[in-house]
Amino acid sequence: MEKFELHILGCGSALPTSRHFPTSQVLNVRDKLFMIDCGEGAQLQFRKSKLKFSRLNHIFISHLHGDHCFGLLGLISTLNLLGRTAELHIHSPQDLEGLLCPMLDFFNRQMTYRVVFHPFETREPALIYEDRSITVTTIPLRHRLPTCGFLFAEKPRANHILREMTDFYQVPVYELNRIKSGADFVTPEGKVIPNAHLTRPADPPRRYAYCSDTLPLASVVEQVRGVDLLFHEATFADEDIPRAKETFHTTATQAASLARDAGVKRLLIGHFSARYEDEKLLLKQATEAFPATMLAKEGLSVSI
Amino acid sequence: MEKFELHILGCGSALPTSRHFPTSQVLNVRDKLFMIDCGEGAQLQFRKSKLKFSRLNHIFISHLHGDHCFGLLGLISTLNLLGRTAELHIHSPQDLEGLLCPMLDFFNRQMTYRVVFHPFETREPALIYEDRSITVTTIPLRHRLPTCGFLFAEKPRANHILREMTDFYQVPVYELNRIKSGADFVTPEGKVIPNAHLTRPADPPRRYAYCSDTLPLASVVEQVRGVDLLFHEATFADEDIPRAKETFHTTATQAASLARDAGVKRLLIGHFSARYEDEKLLLKQATEAFPATMLAKEGLSVSI
Repeated sequence: MEKFELHILGCGSALPTSRHFPTSQVLNVRDKLFMIDCGEGAQLQFRKSKLKFSRLNHIFISHLHGDHCFGLLGLISTLNLLGRTAELHIHSPQDLEGLLCPMLDFFNRQMTYRVVFHPFETREPALIYEDRSITVTTIPLRHRLPTCGFLFAEKPRANHILREMTDFYQVPVYELNRIKSGADFVTPEGKVIPNAHLTRPADPPRRYAYCSDTLPLASVVEQVRGVDLLFHEATFADEDIPRAKETFHTTATQAASLARDAGVKRLLIGHFSARYEDEKLLLKQATEAFPATMLAKEGLSVSI
Repeated sequence: MEKFELHILGCGSALPTSRHFPTSQVLNVRDKLFMIDCGEGAQLQFRKSKLKFSRLNHIFISHLHGDHCFGLLGLISTLNLLGRTAELHIHSPQDLEGLLCPMLDFFNRQMTYRVVFHPFETREPALIYEDRSITVTTIPLRHRLPTCGFLFAEKPRANHILREMTDFYQVPVYELNRIKSGADFVTPEGKVIPNAHLTRPADPPRRYAYCSDTLPLASVVEQVRGVDLLFHEATFADEDIPRAKETFHTTATQAASLARDAGVKRLLIGHFSARYEDEKLLLKQATEAFPATMLAKEGLSVSI
């Protein structure tokens, strides 16, 4: 299986604790790295996770709260010190460019590369990135200011050629692409070899959904239905449900119920409030509603 | 002895490594905390060191490079989330307020406290802070942009009263302050009791000097003469002296020679370049010129 792997750089919330960094993750799709949110210290955690800066070309920011984007200044400056030349693309809600640029201009007298800002609307799901292997679609969320999650979806891949069979039938090389796409093969004698004899199906495309920060939303259930991995914030335990509501956050049980309703394969919870000494309570509450739940943790990587 | 203690929050330089945070320190003077530089992640390290945000009222920024001040945004925002009401004073070279305020205004819709900026000139030593127990004086440095170190000096304290002796001579309470300040006591019978019989001398005032980032300077030798602890940057090893010169930094041996020439009691080196796997080499080079050298390290605290 080709790489589709999530790295947790930080999974705390706004108030710092001695255990957590603020939010940041990296999704590794076949060695292209996609950063999701960039809280303070993200670049330090990135290095600690032995990820390569040169593989990082796109950063997705869910919303403009400090604990999701204060790491950008340091990261962008470091890439400049390293003499990066490739463009760096930052996808976020409106206003980020105007906020960051005066500081970037001052602190990086000469930029060796270009930072390209791609603001997105947060009301409706929108395709904001696409390459040969994946698409990224926004997931509108409901927080105290415009916020979106992100759905990373692999594109369906071509079938795998069964080399022994194509050799046996002496399929010419120029036919292979058609066969990968599902075509049958017709021998010079006119015999039809069905595609199913020549290939095995590609691995099913995988999907990862990231939802933070937000109230639990029915529209999210629809959009993340059946994903292989759902990251959903679970800032609070159930007893703090009034506080969750008031601050537009989700509890552990709410996140788990949403995962269950959406029929996702696995749930990863994070964005933990500083008030909990450890997160076992959150895990306990979540697994009661949805057993396939994991706790996020700095340094964790999850193969999808 | 009253507290005069240095905490290292970060001692790396601009490029992140998996071992170091960028520069930040906290000096604890009788439970008042003074932060010196505030690189990315300083607030996280502050919490890890079990220091109290409520004790922090003054931050001193040596110069406006990102690795010395990118942690301010997160720290200031966190103090706001915590509902701080006391003013926070930031002392730095020119321009910091204009750079930070647009971001602070956006990310903290309602500030619960006031941040007061105190820009200082960097050409001549200047007294920039004073309270009952200490003074802080700038130490002009030479880097790629205006930069100052800081000299924290305890004020001389009053002598300690020897309670047994003042009781013996029946010294009235209203005389005690005069005696603390060095006066003799005259008994009702006219007998003079010399001050030395009634008091023991106060502990000598202590001094801490912080010098980063800079070329090694003769003027610094004069200004830090005899301090109890000198922190001096030692970004590079001796073999990288051309690189040190070019980037306006100091090598380990240069820092140690400066400490020796200044007759300081102890030297602490830091601001290590990311190029060294560990800093034993720097320590070895420094101790050859000045044996009382220590390596800075995240989490280290040094009683002065």
